[in-house]
Amino acid sequence: MFITFEGIEGTGKTTQIKRLVAWLTSERGRTVTVTREPGGSRLGTELRRILLSMESRDLTGTSELFLYLADRAQHVATVIRPALDEGKVVVCDRFADSTVVYQGYGRGLDPRLLHTFNDVAVGGTWPDLTILMDIEPALGLNRALTRNVRENKAQAEGRFEAEDLEFHNRVREGYLTWAALHSQRFAIVDATPGPDEVFAAVRAAVEERMPQIEKQPSPR
Amino acid sequence: MFITFEGIEGTGKTTQIKRLVAWLTSERGRTVTVTREPGGSRLGTELRRILLSMESRDLTGTSELFLYLADRAQHVATVIRPALDEGKVVVCDRFADSTVVYQGYGRGLDPRLLHTFNDVAVGGTWPDLTILMDIEPALGLNRALTRNVRENKAQAEGRFEAEDLEFHNRVREGYLTWAALHSQRFAIVDATPGPDEVFAAVRAAVEERMPQIEKQPSPR
Repeated sequence: MFITFEGIEGTGKTTQIKRLVAWLTSERGRTVTVTREPGGSRLGTELRRILLSMESRDLTGTSELFLYLADRAQHVATVIRPALDEGKVVVCDRFADSTVVYQGYGRGLDPRLLHTFNDVAVGGTWPDLTILMDIEPALGLNRALTRNVRENKAQAEGRFEAEDLEFHNRVREGYLTWAALHSQRFAIVDATPGPDEVFAAVRAAVEERMPQIEKQPSPR
Repeated sequence: MFITFEGIEGTGKTTQIKRLVAWLTSERGRTVTVTREPGGSRLGTELRRILLSMESRDLTGTSELFLYLADRAQHVATVIRPALDEGKVVVCDRFADSTVVYQGYGRGLDPRLLHTFNDVAVGGTWPDLTILMDIEPALGLNRALTRNVRENKAQAEGRFEAEDLEFHNRVREGYLTWAALHSQRFAIVDATPGPDEVFAAVRAAVEERMPQIEKQPSPR
Protein backbone atom coordinates (compact mmCIF):
# COMPACT_ATOMS: atom_id res chain seq x y z
CA MET A 1 0.00 0.00 0.00
CA PHE A 2 1.50 3.25 -1.20
CA ILE A 3 0.06 6.60 0.01
CA THR A 4 1.37 10.02 -1.06
CA PHE A 5 0.63 13.50 0.30
CA GLU A 6 0.52 16.52 -2.00
CA GLY A 7 -0.28 20.21 -1.64
CA ILE A 8 1.29 23.65 -1.52
CA GLU A 9 3.48 24.78 1.38
CA GLY A 10 1.84 25.32 4.77
CA THR A 11 -0.98 22.79 4.46
CA GLY A 12 0.29 20.78 7.41
CA LYS A 13 1.44 17.71 5.45
CA THR A 14 4.20 16.90 7.94
CA THR A 15 1.82 16.95 10.92
CA GLN A 16 -0.81 14.83 9.18
CA ILE A 17 1.77 12.29 7.98
CA LYS A 18 3.00 11.84 11.57
CA ARG A 19 -0.57 11.27 12.76
CA LEU A 20 -1.39 8.86 9.96
CA VAL A 21 1.75 6.84 10.64
CA ALA A 22 0.97 6.69 14.37
CA TRP A 23 -2.57 5.52 13.60
CA LEU A 24 -1.50 2.92 11.00
CA THR A 25 1.09 1.57 13.43
CA SER A 26 -0.77 1.52 16.74
CA GLU A 27 -4.41 1.15 15.60
CA ARG A 28 -3.94 -1.01 12.53
CA GLY A 29 -0.75 -2.90 13.35
CA ARG A 30 1.01 -1.99 10.13
CA THR A 31 4.72 -1.49 9.52
CA VAL A 32 5.14 1.87 7.85
CA THR A 33 8.02 3.39 5.88
CA VAL A 34 7.83 7.20 5.89
CA THR A 35 9.78 9.01 3.21
CA ARG A 36 9.76 12.19 1.14
CA GLU A 37 10.71 13.83 -2.12
CA PRO A 38 13.04 15.32 -2.88
CA GLY A 39 15.51 13.56 -0.64
CA GLY A 40 14.29 10.08 0.25
CA SER A 41 17.34 8.22 -1.08
CA ARG A 42 21.06 8.64 -0.48
CA LEU A 43 21.43 10.40 -3.82
CA GLY A 44 18.31 12.38 -2.98
CA THR A 45 19.83 13.90 0.13
CA GLU A 46 22.46 15.59 -2.01
CA LEU A 47 19.95 16.61 -4.69
CA ARG A 48 17.54 17.99 -2.09
CA ARG A 49 20.26 20.31 -0.88
CA ILE A 50 20.90 21.53 -4.45
CA LEU A 51 17.21 21.85 -5.31
CA LEU A 52 15.92 23.67 -2.25
CA SER A 53 18.83 25.95 -1.54
CA MET A 54 18.42 29.65 -2.15
CA GLU A 55 21.76 29.42 -3.99
CA SER A 56 20.12 27.43 -6.79
CA ARG A 57 18.17 30.38 -8.14
CA ASP A 58 20.05 30.13 -11.45
CA LEU A 59 18.71 26.60 -12.05
CA THR A 60 16.75 26.46 -15.31
CA GLY A 61 13.27 24.97 -15.17
CA THR A 62 14.29 22.09 -17.41
CA SER A 63 17.31 21.22 -15.31
CA GLU A 64 15.26 21.35 -12.12
CA LEU A 65 12.74 19.00 -13.74
CA PHE A 66 15.37 16.38 -14.55
CA LEU A 67 16.89 16.57 -11.05
CA TYR A 68 13.49 15.79 -9.54
CA LEU A 69 13.09 12.87 -11.94
CA ALA A 70 16.57 11.54 -11.07
CA ASP A 71 15.73 11.72 -7.39
CA ARG A 72 12.40 9.98 -7.99
CA ALA A 73 13.84 7.11 -10.05
CA GLN A 74 16.46 6.40 -7.37
CA HIS A 75 13.94 6.79 -4.56
CA VAL A 76 11.45 4.35 -6.11
CA ALA A 77 14.11 1.75 -6.90
CA THR A 78 16.04 1.84 -3.63
CA VAL A 79 13.44 2.83 -0.99
CA ILE A 80 9.79 2.65 -2.04
CA ARG A 81 9.65 -0.55 -4.12
CA PRO A 82 11.74 -2.62 -1.66
CA ALA A 83 9.48 -1.53 1.25
CA LEU A 84 6.30 -2.38 -0.70
CA ASP A 85 7.81 -5.74 -1.64
CA GLU A 86 8.26 -6.46 2.08
CA GLY A 87 4.54 -5.76 2.66
CA LYS A 88 5.07 -2.42 4.37
CA VAL A 89 2.83 0.61 3.97
CA VAL A 90 4.79 3.45 2.34
CA VAL A 91 3.77 7.05 3.12
CA CYS A 92 5.57 9.64 1.00
CA ASP A 93 5.61 13.44 1.42
CA ARG A 94 5.34 14.67 -2.22
CA PHE A 95 5.77 12.40 -5.25
CA ALA A 96 5.30 12.43 -9.03
CA ASP A 97 2.27 14.73 -8.96
CA SER A 98 4.43 17.53 -7.53
CA THR A 99 6.43 17.51 -10.77
CA VAL A 100 3.34 17.75 -12.97
CA VAL A 101 1.88 20.53 -10.86
CA TYR A 102 4.93 22.67 -10.02
CA GLN A 103 6.85 22.31 -13.31
CA GLY A 104 3.72 21.99 -15.45
CA TYR A 105 0.89 24.15 -14.14
CA GLY A 106 3.33 26.30 -12.13
CA ARG A 107 6.12 26.91 -14.66
CA GLY A 108 4.39 26.24 -17.96
CA LEU A 109 5.82 22.91 -19.14
CA ASP A 110 3.38 20.48 -20.76
CA PRO A 111 1.66 18.36 -18.03
CA ARG A 112 1.17 15.42 -20.42
CA LEU A 113 4.87 15.37 -21.37
CA LEU A 114 5.72 15.51 -17.66
CA HIS A 115 3.44 12.57 -17.02
CA THR A 116 5.38 10.59 -19.67
CA PHE A 117 8.65 11.47 -17.92
CA ASN A 118 7.16 10.41 -14.56
CA ASP A 119 6.14 7.10 -16.07
CA VAL A 120 9.79 6.37 -16.90
CA ALA A 121 10.97 7.54 -13.47
CA VAL A 122 8.49 5.50 -11.38
CA GLY A 123 8.66 2.40 -13.57
CA GLY A 124 5.07 1.34 -12.82
CA THR A 125 5.08 2.13 -9.09
CA TRP A 126 2.19 4.62 -8.84
CA PRO A 127 0.51 5.42 -5.48
CA ASP A 128 -2.69 3.61 -4.50
CA LEU A 129 -3.96 6.78 -2.83
CA THR A 130 -2.86 10.42 -3.08
CA ILE A 131 -4.15 12.82 -0.45
CA LEU A 132 -4.25 16.40 -1.71
CA MET A 133 -4.15 18.84 1.21
CA ASP A 134 -5.97 21.90 -0.11
CA ILE A 135 -5.75 25.39 1.34
CA GLU A 136 -6.05 29.02 0.29
CA PRO A 137 -2.47 29.89 -0.83
CA ALA A 138 -2.25 33.16 1.17
CA LEU A 139 -3.10 31.22 4.34
CA GLY A 140 -0.72 28.35 3.53
CA LEU A 141 2.21 30.63 2.73
CA ASN A 142 1.68 32.55 5.93
CA ARG A 143 1.86 29.30 7.90
CA ALA A 144 4.99 28.19 6.00
CA LEU A 145 6.78 31.49 6.57
CA THR A 146 6.01 31.38 10.29
CA ARG A 147 7.36 27.85 10.45
CA ASN A 148 10.56 28.71 8.56
CA VAL A 149 11.31 31.67 10.84
CA ARG A 150 10.58 29.57 13.91
CA GLU A 151 12.79 26.71 12.75
CA ASN A 152 15.43 29.06 11.36
CA LYS A 153 15.54 27.29 8.00
CA ALA A 154 14.42 30.10 5.72
CA GLN A 155 17.83 30.31 4.06
CA ALA A 156 18.29 26.57 3.52
CA GLU A 157 14.83 25.61 2.27
CA GLY A 158 13.00 28.83 1.53
CA ARG A 159 13.26 28.89 -2.26
CA PHE A 160 9.71 27.88 -3.05
CA GLU A 161 8.17 30.02 -0.33
CA ALA A 162 9.94 33.03 -1.89
CA GLU A 163 7.96 32.65 -5.11
CA ASP A 164 5.15 35.12 -5.46
CA LEU A 165 1.58 34.46 -4.51
CA GLU A 166 0.46 34.29 -8.13
CA PHE A 167 2.71 31.25 -8.68
CA HIS A 168 1.23 29.49 -5.66
CA ASN A 169 -2.28 30.26 -6.87
CA ARG A 170 -1.44 28.58 -10.21
CA VAL A 171 0.00 25.59 -8.34
CA ARG A 172 -3.09 25.25 -6.16
CA GLU A 173 -5.38 25.39 -9.17
CA GLY A 174 -3.10 22.94 -10.98
CA TYR A 175 -3.42 20.47 -8.10
CA LEU A 176 -7.22 20.71 -8.18
CA THR A 177 -7.28 20.22 -11.98
CA TRP A 178 -4.88 17.28 -11.86
CA ALA A 179 -6.82 15.67 -8.99
CA ALA A 180 -10.05 15.99 -10.97
CA LEU A 181 -8.38 14.28 -13.94
CA HIS A 182 -7.26 11.40 -11.67
CA SER A 183 -10.17 11.27 -9.25
CA GLN A 184 -9.90 7.51 -8.69
CA ARG A 185 -6.48 7.93 -7.09
CA PHE A 186 -6.89 11.35 -5.43
CA ALA A 187 -8.74 12.33 -2.24
CA ILE A 188 -9.00 16.06 -1.57
CA VAL A 189 -8.85 17.13 2.10
CA ASP A 190 -9.61 20.68 3.26
CA ALA A 191 -6.50 21.71 5.23
CA THR A 192 -7.98 24.92 6.65
CA PRO A 193 -9.36 23.64 10.01
CA GLY A 194 -7.31 22.56 13.04
CA PRO A 195 -5.17 19.39 12.94
CA ASP A 196 -7.75 17.12 14.69
CA GLU A 197 -10.49 17.91 12.22
CA VAL A 198 -8.09 17.56 9.27
CA PHE A 199 -6.85 14.20 10.52
CA ALA A 200 -10.41 12.90 10.82
CA ALA A 201 -10.79 13.65 7.10
CA VAL A 202 -7.42 12.03 6.24
CA ARG A 203 -8.34 8.89 8.15
CA ALA A 204 -11.76 8.76 6.54
CA ALA A 205 -10.15 9.00 3.08
CA VAL A 206 -7.74 6.15 3.87
CA GLU A 207 -10.51 3.93 5.28
CA GLU A 208 -12.82 4.63 2.35
CA ARG A 209 -10.28 4.17 -0.42
CA MET A 210 -8.35 1.32 1.14
CA PRO A 211 -10.80 -1.13 2.75
CA GLN A 212 -7.93 -3.61 3.22
CA ILE A 213 -6.68 -1.32 6.02
CA GLU A 214 -9.55 -2.44 8.29
CA LYS A 215 -8.64 -3.33 11.83
CA GLN A 216 -6.89 -6.68 11.90
CA PRO A 217 -7.74 -9.17 14.66
CA SER A 218 -5.21 -9.09 17.46
CA PRO A 219 -2.63 -11.90 17.15
CA ARG A 220 -4.00 -13.66 20.25
CA MET B 1 29.41 27.01 -34.61
CA PHE B 2 28.97 24.11 -32.22
CA ILE B 3 31.26 21.04 -32.47
CA THR B 4 31.01 17.99 -30.19
CA PHE B 5 33.38 15.04 -29.71
CA GLU B 6 32.06 11.57 -28.97
CA GLY B 7 33.55 8.11 -28.54
CA ILE B 8 34.39 5.47 -25.93
CA GLU B 9 37.13 5.97 -23.34
CA GLY B 10 40.73 6.08 -24.53
CA THR B 11 40.17 7.45 -28.03
CA GLY B 12 42.23 10.57 -27.32
CA LYS B 13 39.32 13.05 -27.32
CA THR B 14 41.05 15.37 -24.84
CA THR B 15 44.25 15.56 -26.91
CA GLN B 16 42.39 16.19 -30.16
CA ILE B 17 40.16 18.85 -28.61
CA LYS B 18 43.27 20.73 -27.41
CA ARG B 19 44.77 20.58 -30.89
CA LEU B 20 41.56 21.66 -32.59
CA VAL B 21 41.17 24.61 -30.23
CA ALA B 22 44.78 25.68 -30.83
CA TRP B 23 44.24 25.47 -34.58
CA LEU B 24 40.90 27.32 -34.54
CA THR B 25 42.43 30.06 -32.40
CA SER B 26 45.83 30.59 -34.01
CA GLU B 27 45.20 29.52 -37.62
CA ARG B 28 41.60 30.66 -38.03
CA GLY B 29 41.39 33.56 -35.59
CA ARG B 30 38.33 32.24 -33.79
CA THR B 31 37.36 32.67 -30.16
CA VAL B 32 36.64 29.23 -28.76
CA THR B 33 34.77 28.07 -25.64
CA VAL B 34 35.86 24.57 -24.61
CA THR B 35 33.55 22.64 -22.34
CA ARG B 36 32.48 19.12 -21.44
CA GLU B 37 29.70 16.90 -20.19
CA PRO B 38 29.06 15.99 -17.55
CA GLY B 39 30.32 18.99 -15.64
CA GLY B 40 30.36 22.08 -17.87
CA SER B 41 28.14 24.23 -15.62
CA ARG B 42 28.29 25.11 -11.93
CA LEU B 43 25.57 22.56 -11.20
CA GLY B 44 27.39 20.14 -13.49
CA THR B 45 30.54 20.17 -11.40
CA GLU B 46 28.59 18.71 -8.49
CA LEU B 47 26.71 16.23 -10.66
CA ARG B 48 29.91 15.11 -12.38
CA ARG B 49 31.32 14.18 -9.01
CA ILE B 50 28.20 12.13 -8.20
CA LEU B 51 28.01 10.51 -11.64
CA LEU B 52 31.59 9.44 -12.12
CA SER B 53 32.49 8.44 -8.59
CA MET B 54 33.00 4.79 -7.83
CA GLU B 55 30.72 5.38 -4.82
CA SER B 56 27.77 5.82 -7.18
CA ARG B 57 27.63 2.17 -8.17
CA ASP B 58 24.15 1.89 -6.66
CA LEU B 59 22.77 4.52 -9.07
CA THR B 60 19.95 3.06 -11.14
CA GLY B 61 20.15 3.47 -14.91
CA THR B 62 17.05 5.66 -14.97
CA SER B 63 18.35 7.96 -12.27
CA GLU B 64 21.69 8.27 -14.01
CA LEU B 65 19.87 9.17 -17.22
CA PHE B 66 17.97 12.03 -15.59
CA LEU B 67 21.12 13.39 -13.91
CA TYR B 68 22.83 13.61 -17.30
CA LEU B 69 19.79 15.38 -18.73
CA ALA B 70 19.72 17.85 -15.82
CA ASP B 71 23.39 18.59 -16.37
CA ARG B 72 22.81 19.04 -20.10
CA ALA B 73 19.84 21.40 -19.76
CA GLN B 74 21.80 23.64 -17.39
CA HIS B 75 24.94 23.43 -19.50
CA VAL B 76 23.16 24.44 -22.72
CA ALA B 77 21.28 27.31 -21.06
CA THR B 78 24.12 28.80 -19.05
CA VAL B 79 27.28 27.99 -21.06
CA ILE B 80 26.78 26.77 -24.62
CA ARG B 81 23.94 28.98 -25.89
CA PRO B 82 25.38 32.22 -24.44
CA ALA B 83 28.77 31.49 -26.08
CA LEU B 84 27.16 30.72 -29.46
CA ASP B 85 25.10 33.91 -29.17
CA GLU B 86 28.35 35.86 -28.78
CA GLY B 87 29.64 34.36 -32.05
CA LYS B 88 32.13 32.01 -30.38
CA VAL B 89 32.94 28.51 -31.55
CA VAL B 90 31.90 25.98 -28.87
CA VAL B 91 33.79 22.67 -28.65
CA CYS B 92 32.25 20.17 -26.22
CA ASP B 93 33.70 16.88 -24.95
CA ARG B 94 30.64 14.57 -25.02
CA PHE B 95 27.06 15.79 -25.49
CA ALA B 96 23.55 14.45 -26.12
CA ASP B 97 24.71 11.51 -28.25
CA SER B 98 26.53 10.05 -25.23
CA THR B 99 23.17 9.63 -23.52
CA VAL B 100 21.60 7.84 -26.47
CA VAL B 101 24.59 5.56 -26.86
CA TYR B 102 25.53 4.77 -23.24
CA GLN B 103 22.02 4.62 -21.72
CA GLY B 104 20.37 3.34 -24.90
CA TYR B 105 22.63 0.98 -26.81
CA GLY B 106 24.78 0.36 -23.70
CA ARG B 107 22.14 -0.18 -21.01
CA GLY B 108 19.09 -1.10 -23.03
CA LEU B 109 16.81 1.96 -22.81
CA ASP B 110 14.95 2.96 -25.99
CA PRO B 111 17.21 5.23 -28.14
CA ARG B 112 14.20 7.02 -29.66
CA LEU B 113 12.73 7.83 -26.24
CA LEU B 114 16.17 9.09 -25.18
CA HIS B 115 16.28 11.30 -28.25
CA THR B 116 12.93 12.83 -27.16
CA PHE B 117 14.37 13.51 -23.69
CA ASN B 118 17.47 15.10 -25.28
CA ASP B 119 15.25 17.33 -27.38
CA VAL B 120 13.72 18.77 -24.19
CA ALA B 121 17.14 19.12 -22.53
CA VAL B 122 18.92 20.90 -25.41
CA GLY B 123 15.93 23.08 -26.35
CA GLY B 124 16.87 23.23 -30.05
CA THR B 125 20.63 23.69 -29.60
CA TRP B 126 21.99 20.69 -31.54
CA PRO B 127 25.66 20.52 -32.70
CA ASP B 128 26.56 21.55 -36.25
CA LEU B 129 29.23 18.83 -36.36
CA THR B 130 29.84 15.77 -34.16
CA ILE B 131 33.20 14.05 -34.47
CA LEU B 132 33.01 10.38 -33.51
CA MET B 133 36.44 9.11 -32.48
CA ASP B 134 36.32 5.41 -33.28
CA ILE B 135 38.64 2.76 -31.88
CA GLU B 136 38.70 -0.95 -31.06
CA PRO B 137 37.34 -1.06 -27.43
CA ALA B 138 40.12 -3.32 -26.09
CA LEU B 139 42.71 -0.84 -27.34
CA GLY B 140 40.80 2.21 -26.05
CA LEU B 141 40.24 0.73 -22.59
CA ASN B 142 43.90 -0.17 -22.31
CA ARG B 143 44.82 3.45 -23.05
CA ALA B 144 42.22 4.77 -20.56
CA LEU B 145 43.43 2.47 -17.78
CA THR B 146 47.04 3.50 -18.34
CA ARG B 147 45.99 7.14 -18.17
CA ASN B 148 43.96 6.69 -14.98
CA VAL B 149 46.82 4.95 -13.20
CA ARG B 150 49.29 7.60 -14.39
CA GLU B 151 47.05 10.46 -13.27
CA ASN B 152 46.00 8.67 -10.09
CA LYS B 153 42.31 9.25 -10.75
CA ALA B 154 41.08 5.68 -11.02
CA GLN B 155 39.08 5.97 -7.81
CA ALA B 156 37.46 9.31 -8.60
CA GLU B 157 36.52 8.82 -12.23
CA GLY B 158 36.96 5.16 -12.99
CA ARG B 159 33.36 3.99 -12.93
CA PHE B 160 32.85 3.63 -16.67
CA GLU B 161 36.25 2.10 -17.29
CA ALA B 162 35.39 -0.59 -14.75
CA GLU B 163 32.51 -1.83 -16.91
CA ASP B 164 33.28 -4.99 -18.79
CA LEU B 165 34.54 -5.15 -22.35
CA GLU B 166 31.21 -6.44 -23.64
CA PHE B 167 29.51 -3.22 -22.52
CA HIS B 168 32.11 -1.13 -24.33
CA ASN B 169 31.68 -3.21 -27.46
CA ARG B 170 27.94 -2.47 -27.39
CA VAL B 171 28.66 1.22 -26.89
CA ARG B 172 31.09 1.33 -29.79
CA GLU B 173 28.62 -0.40 -32.09
CA GLY B 174 25.89 1.92 -30.81
CA TYR B 175 27.97 4.95 -31.74
CA LEU B 176 28.51 3.62 -35.26
CA THR B 177 24.80 2.85 -35.69
CA TRP B 178 23.71 6.26 -34.36
CA ALA B 179 26.27 8.06 -36.55
CA ALA B 180 24.96 6.21 -39.60
CA LEU B 181 21.42 7.32 -38.73
CA HIS B 182 22.60 10.95 -38.47
CA SER B 183 25.28 10.99 -41.15
CA GLN B 184 24.75 14.64 -42.05
CA ARG B 185 25.88 15.74 -38.60
CA PHE B 186 28.47 13.04 -37.81
CA ALA B 187 32.03 12.62 -39.08
CA ILE B 188 33.76 9.36 -38.09
CA VAL B 189 37.52 9.58 -37.42
CA ASP B 190 39.71 6.52 -36.93
CA ALA B 191 41.41 7.09 -33.55
CA THR B 192 43.88 4.19 -33.86
CA PRO B 193 46.90 6.01 -35.38
CA GLY B 194 49.18 8.51 -33.62
CA PRO B 195 47.88 11.96 -32.63
CA ASP B 196 49.29 13.82 -35.68
CA GLU B 197 47.57 11.55 -38.16
CA VAL B 198 44.31 11.63 -36.18
CA PHE B 199 44.40 15.42 -36.00
CA ALA B 200 44.83 15.68 -39.77
CA ALA B 201 41.58 13.75 -40.11
CA VAL B 202 39.81 15.89 -37.48
CA ARG B 203 40.88 19.08 -39.25
CA ALA B 204 39.81 17.71 -42.61
CA ALA B 205 36.37 16.89 -41.19
CA VAL B 206 35.96 20.39 -39.78
CA GLU B 207 37.09 22.04 -43.04
CA GLU B 208 34.85 19.83 -45.14
CA ARG B 209 31.70 20.12 -43.04
CA MET B 210 32.10 23.74 -42.05
CA PRO B 211 33.30 25.75 -45.06
CA GLN B 212 32.64 28.96 -43.12
CA ILE B 213 35.74 28.10 -41.06
CA GLU B 214 38.01 29.00 -44.02
CA LYS B 215 41.01 31.16 -43.29
CA GLN B 216 39.88 34.71 -42.72
CA PRO B 217 41.95 37.57 -44.18
CA SER B 218 44.30 39.06 -41.61
CA PRO B 219 42.90 42.23 -40.02
CA ARG B 220 45.56 44.38 -41.74
